Amino acid sequence: MITLTSDFGSPYPGAMKGIVQHHTDAELCDLTHELPRQNVRAAAFWLRQLIPYWPPVVHLTVVDPGVGTDRAAIVVRADGHALVGPDNGVLLPVARELAGEDFEVFEIVEGEEPVSWYGEVPWPPDPASSTFHGRDVFAPAAGRVHELGIDSFESDVGFEPVDEYEDLTFPEPEISEGRARGTVLAIDDFGNVITNIPGDVIDELWETHAQANGVGATIRETYAVADPGHRVVTVGSHGNVELAVNRGRGDKSFGIRTGDSVKLSWVQ
Amino acid sequence: MITLTSDFGSPYPGAMKGIVQHHTDAELCDLTHELPRQNVRAAAFWLRQLIPYWPPVVHLTVVDPGVGTDRAAIVVRADGHALVGPDNGVLLPVARELAGEDFEVFEIVEGEEPVSWYGEVPWPPDPASSTFHGRDVFAPAAGRVHELGIDSFESDVGFEPVDEYEDLTFPEPEISEGRARGTVLAIDDFGNVITNIPGDVIDELWETHAQANGVGATIRETYAVADPGHRVVTVGSHGNVELAVNRGRGDKSFGIRTGDSVKLSWVQ
Amino acid sequence: MITLTSDFGSPYPGAMKGIVQHHTDAELCDLTHELPRQNVRAAAFWLRQLIPYWPPVVHLTVVDPGVGTDRAAIVVRADGHALVGPDNGVLLPVARELAGEDFEVFEIVEGEEPVSWYGEVPWPPDPASSTFHGRDVFAPAAGRVHELGIDSFESDVGFEPVDEYEDLTFPEPEISEGRARGTVLAIDDFGNVITNIPGDVIDELWETHAQANGVGATIRETYAVADPGHRVVTVGSHGNVELAVNRGRGDKSFGIRTGDSVKLSWVQ
Repeated sequence: MITLTSDFGSPYPGAMKGIVQHHTDAELCDLTHELPRQNVRAAAFWLRQLIPYWPPVVHLTVVDPGVGTDRAAIVVRADGHALVGPDNGVLLPVARELAGEDFEVFEIVEGEEPVSWYGEVPWPPDPASSTFHGRDVFAPAAGRVHELGIDSFESDVGFEPVDEYEDLTFPEPEISEGRARGTVLAIDDFGNVITNIPGDVIDELWETHAQANGVGATIRETYAVADPGHRVVTVGSHGNVELAVNRGRGDKSFGIRTGDSVKLSWVQ
Repeated sequence: MITLTSDFGSPYPGAMKGIVQHHTDAELCDLTHELPRQNVRAAAFWLRQLIPYWPPVVHLTVVDPGVGTDRAAIVVRADGHALVGPDNGVLLPVARELAGEDFEVFEIVEGEEPVSWYGEVPWPPDPASSTFHGRDVFAPAAGRVHELGIDSFESDVGFEPVDEYEDLTFPEPEISEGRARGTVLAIDDFGNVITNIPGDVIDELWETHAQANGVGATIRETYAVADPGHRVVTVGSHGNVELAVNRGRGDKSFGIRTGDSVKLSWVQ
Repeated sequence: MITLTSDFGSPYPGAMKGIVQHHTDAELCDLTHELPRQNVRAAAFWLRQLIPYWPPVVHLTVVDPGVGTDRAAIVVRADGHALVGPDNGVLLPVARELAGEDFEVFEIVEGEEPVSWYGEVPWPPDPASSTFHGRDVFAPAAGRVHELGIDSFESDVGFEPVDEYEDLTFPEPEISEGRARGTVLAIDDFGNVITNIPGDVIDELWETHAQANGVGATIRETYAVADPGHRVVTVGSHGNVELAVNRGRGDKSFGIRTGDSVKLSWVQ
């Protein structure tokens, strides 16, 4: 099994899937190709929310605004999973979620032979394009990791262990009595605003009044216990504070976007 | 094989798929995750248009505006298929399409043990979240049904046969000579307006003039026999009357939305 | 393996997948269902950009604005691949990319027996609808081709070799010293404008100033070597000239849409 995740939308994932099939007949499973476009931090948040629910498999994950520059391509091995993607930090939060600091990083090194992409698939990769490494580097690498096995792919000349890599951590919220100051990590397709404020600050305070950036709402256990159209502050499935509207969009109602600061206050 | 259908968009289905893999290595197949959001009736219509074309398999179907409230989670067994989803009526029209009244309903009952979602997957489910039962209840239930078999999953303590469940039926149109009064059940991605009026009222009346809510159109056998941009009233692939525009959007041209009433008249 | 590609969006592909399963338990893999809607030429471009990266398999490809008219349904066999879709030219550019002029075309012929779509799946197809041949003609045909084998499906009465079919070629650009006049074949989800001008006219001219329809930009090796928000003219992964904006949308910034003419000039 190889999962695929990207910010490509349509149709580029269809080429990546074909390239993988040259290396392995692994079953392919889309996680999503609608990650927030070219937003490495939000993408890193979502990967951390998806991949830990999987048994150990190969994950091909491409959110790569630096494609074609000298940023490296890497494989991260963590708790039996192999994460294949660009060295821009996007893989680090999920690697830590899986394995703490006990993960390994390998650089995908380029080959030296010229290549016909319409004939055979080269390994190590020698990119034909400078704008689509999902197809030309990461897909063949993921296929090759699957072919060789997550435990032993580094026997191949295309992978070299490295100690340095781009890191990424999420900002820490500030929490005090009845107040928290945080950041919006992501907004989901329902319009739910996902913050970096841990849910336990409001846990069990159901029915209490709260304010987020000056907009009033009620702390509720889930969306549907509020009347339709009413704002709720709740604990999302990721364990963080979420700003939502029952059967509506929290982002619109609170006037908040990804990356914004959030000042949350509540009665304790 | 397990099919997946929801109104989740991106990226939540990626977590559901991982959970299923803890229980079974069944092949996974997306039907769609773009069902009309939190619209149980429109979602029920689409499920009825999709699932009967399948051989008998397990279907994981989540359109769940009441998540986290006391609505039950159920499995419906109908004509060899197992439909896993919330007890809000969304599964009933397809169950009847498959099996008439000859279907069985089982409630998914929660477990009693605390759970680490990042370690092993619990069964019966003990939800870690009150906002994402697709991941925490329905996905493990679908995996478990597949593991045990559609014919025998009820041997597990997590499933209890029930006689009461939320029902859902579509409104009936009123039909008289040259006239019908109905409802818009859904609008597809092309903008085609799908009504609950049976197609046979206009069948074979090709080239006849019709009106829908006062807007004129021609009854045609298919879209492309009209000139581009022209309105047509036709019989859709579901067998119902459909309001469309060749190479355009019927919903915009007729000014009609999901749930609206439709007054259709034609020359007989 | 059967790949699926269409302009259907959601949810119609879910019915096609079910029909295929009646004929074969082939693994199913979505390329995309978001091809430019009812735009045969742009869809043909994307198919040519996707399918050649695959090993030889069956491809079910439906972009079919003429559904229900007398346009034929065909299978094209090219370099070991089988392409199943409407006879409107959409399959021809990819067939030539795979096999030059060395491809074969078969017409899918309809059956004579009445059919219950909710019971068994007919073969040869006898369409129950005039608006959804993806489900009623192309899906059973693709399943049948897979079942019989790409090398030998024509032994079935449902397939007849033909010499005539709808052709489609892309317009040729005009190229002279420091200038090219071409057409926009497609715009991708990032907003990158893909022209029919071959990339080699600007290859290696990095850092040179260029103009596209009077809008200035710099020729760059890839997006991210420009500052965020800056326009670039680059060579896309398809080998053609592409108009883009680093971390922005080229279509908006250059004011260009699919099908538009492009006048490109550069300093040589």
